[in-house]
Amino acid sequence: MSSEADGKKDVRAGLQVRGGGPVSAQGPSPRPRRPTRPVKVGPVVIGGGAPVSVQTMTKTDTRDVQATIDEIRRLHIAGADLVRLAVPDREAAKALRAIVRQSPLPIVADIHFHYQLALMALEAGVQKLRLNPGNIGGPERVRAVVREAKARGVPIRIGVNAGSLEKDLLSAHGRVPEALVESAERHVKILEDMDFHDIVVSLKASDVPTMVRAYELMAERSPYPLHLGVTEAGPGLAGTVKSVAGIAHLLLEGIGDTIRVSLTEESAEEVQVGLEILYALGLRTKTLEIVACPSCGRCEIDLFAAVREAERQLQDLKAPVKVAIMGCVVNGPGEAREADVGVAGGNGYAVLFKKGRMERRVTEAEMIPALVAEVRQIAEEKARAGA
Amino acid sequence: MSSEADGKKDVRAGLQVRGGGPVSAQGPSPRPRRPTRPVKVGPVVIGGGAPVSVQTMTKTDTRDVQATIDEIRRLHIAGADLVRLAVPDREAAKALRAIVRQSPLPIVADIHFHYQLALMALEAGVQKLRLNPGNIGGPERVRAVVREAKARGVPIRIGVNAGSLEKDLLSAHGRVPEALVESAERHVKILEDMDFHDIVVSLKASDVPTMVRAYELMAERSPYPLHLGVTEAGPGLAGTVKSVAGIAHLLLEGIGDTIRVSLTEESAEEVQVGLEILYALGLRTKTLEIVACPSCGRCEIDLFAAVREAERQLQDLKAPVKVAIMGCVVNGPGEAREADVGVAGGNGYAVLFKKGRMERRVTEAEMIPALVAEVRQIAEEKARAGA
Repeated sequence: MSSEADGKKDVRAGLQVRGGGPVSAQGPSPRPRRPTRPVKVGPVVIGGGAPVSVQTMTKTDTRDVQATIDEIRRLHIAGADLVRLAVPDREAAKALRAIVRQSPLPIVADIHFHYQLALMALEAGVQKLRLNPGNIGGPERVRAVVREAKARGVPIRIGVNAGSLEKDLLSAHGRVPEALVESAERHVKILEDMDFHDIVVSLKASDVPTMVRAYELMAERSPYPLHLGVTEAGPGLAGTVKSVAGIAHLLLEGIGDTIRVSLTEESAEEVQVGLEILYALGLRTKTLEIVACPSCGRCEIDLFAAVREAERQLQDLKAPVKVAIMGCVVNGPGEAREADVGVAGGNGYAVLFKKGRMERRVTEAEMIPALVAEVRQIAEEKARAGA
Repeated sequence: MSSEADGKKDVRAGLQVRGGGPVSAQGPSPRPRRPTRPVKVGPVVIGGGAPVSVQTMTKTDTRDVQATIDEIRRLHIAGADLVRLAVPDREAAKALRAIVRQSPLPIVADIHFHYQLALMALEAGVQKLRLNPGNIGGPERVRAVVREAKARGVPIRIGVNAGSLEKDLLSAHGRVPEALVESAERHVKILEDMDFHDIVVSLKASDVPTMVRAYELMAERSPYPLHLGVTEAGPGLAGTVKSVAGIAHLLLEGIGDTIRVSLTEESAEEVQVGLEILYALGLRTKTLEIVACPSCGRCEIDLFAAVREAERQLQDLKAPVKVAIMGCVVNGPGEAREADVGVAGGNGYAVLFKKGRMERRVTEAEMIPALVAEVRQIAEEKARAGA
């Protein structure tokens, strides 16, 4: 038996299903989730019945480590499960090591054409690559990247885009769903031929019916988890509607393992729309979220004890309130501006802030009671507003 | 053959299909539109392959004729195809005659429980009723309403809502899709038994998967056009996402003939979201829209000539710009605040306004050239913003 066949067998053996039988193209909505091969991105699992994860992309210059880390922390608090960074050059690739070390979320490195950047990203410890193996310059280079990715247990997302299809596919098919699928299958085959199967696939288009049909076709033909997105959805309401229409339709069909809403807006807004899709379809439950950030030497309070106490006092609460407990009065409120409310502990005192704006100073003893009271009030306001 | 069977035969004979064969639950997205019986609401056709129409509901007190007409005019300019009004009492029903006479859009009267209000609405000339025949007090009363609606060619929407299901259905099934469908079928049967078939059906729920499944079930079993909506979707982003997720999914399955996005927001915002859904799915094309309002005695310019001239000069433009040419300097800018740009003609001069805000005064001779220049500039801005 060839190694390719062995590989395929491995893939099928890895299938895991949760909460339903095989996907049926004939069934009612919402259909059971399509069984896919699970892929690990650091602690996050994509596919194999794992919860649908929400991802986004930083809008900072990756070479600016501090700005990028600040944005990643905001995205963490906003509810992102993983975050992708553009890696356009060696300087950006060099910045990855510091970013990965400080990041509260798994990092996906977005690589175009340059296999050296992919190798640098892997060495920096990124948890996933986004890379089209047909575009990085021949089998030897692909093999170098695949060998390193496999050694590190790092998966690769193949990201096909209707805007950048291969010329032969465009002239054979036009910019149609079948061309997107054939392009993806070419890239997949390159990896499978090297016995690499930790694959995620996306087939994005800015036209919703094209995007939807491409994913449906791919779902019929491939065991790999799918990353859903509408590309160039655009700004504001039009972009939101396109993303929601395409992504929600596929999820209701049981298709899709991780989602990225793509807007000409702040990345935290993309995360919020992504989460709202999952809430709307019952794929995630709105709930209290407490995030803590003890990430630097300035931390002066016992954050974990504070989080445990807040969780204990709020365990009855079902409202979708985002709470941050930060270790640093200097940066905490800004980093946690996606949180509805938070506290940042200092030298015997703490500041209480809402949506990143400082509200008042409290003693360390008052910190948790004050936070809990604010959380309950926000929960009531949200309930009244129907959120 | 019983009259019921005759009636059913009539219904099937009325089926019209445009652009596709019968709907298939197995086909790819977007599926051909489900064939449904066409129903006329004034000049608007719902079902039978007619374009999917966008509707909304006024948020004014229907008894306040002027406020209601003002809102309807704004909704007309925003792009609504029809508009529904609450008719909770006799005073509201009495106001309908003046509203219908002045409205640029077909009026749907929303009636609960009181058959007398339905009769008054029909006499006032409304073009559609929303009324659940099982709730208006027995066969004699239903017969009176049905006789009058049939004589006037006015259709009836049966609007089932998960929040107000019959008790026996709730205890037999729970708040599930099957209960919504059974409730709708009971109301439908009452009308069919009276040989009335100008029926539209809605099956709303605030839970997206429940709503989606209810419509899918009904679509398999019934020839009537469907009015899609998620009820109590709530405010802001969460409400928008729920509405888009449910409505767009069904439309991609070929289900749905008219849509209403329901938000805790201005009604014009509901219309905008509805239109964006249709744009996103390719069910409507973004295009220049010129609306004119010559609706009162104050009109001092030849509006139709002005509209024809503007259309001639802008016929090359494909951008989604909303233009208003109003006959009244006093009320025009306010009524047309949903328009991107407009002019209101007066006594030898006109005012040019954007989004309802007056920009500058121009002579009547400058009016159309100035308007055309502004429209082209807005089109360029929108193209840059990716709209």
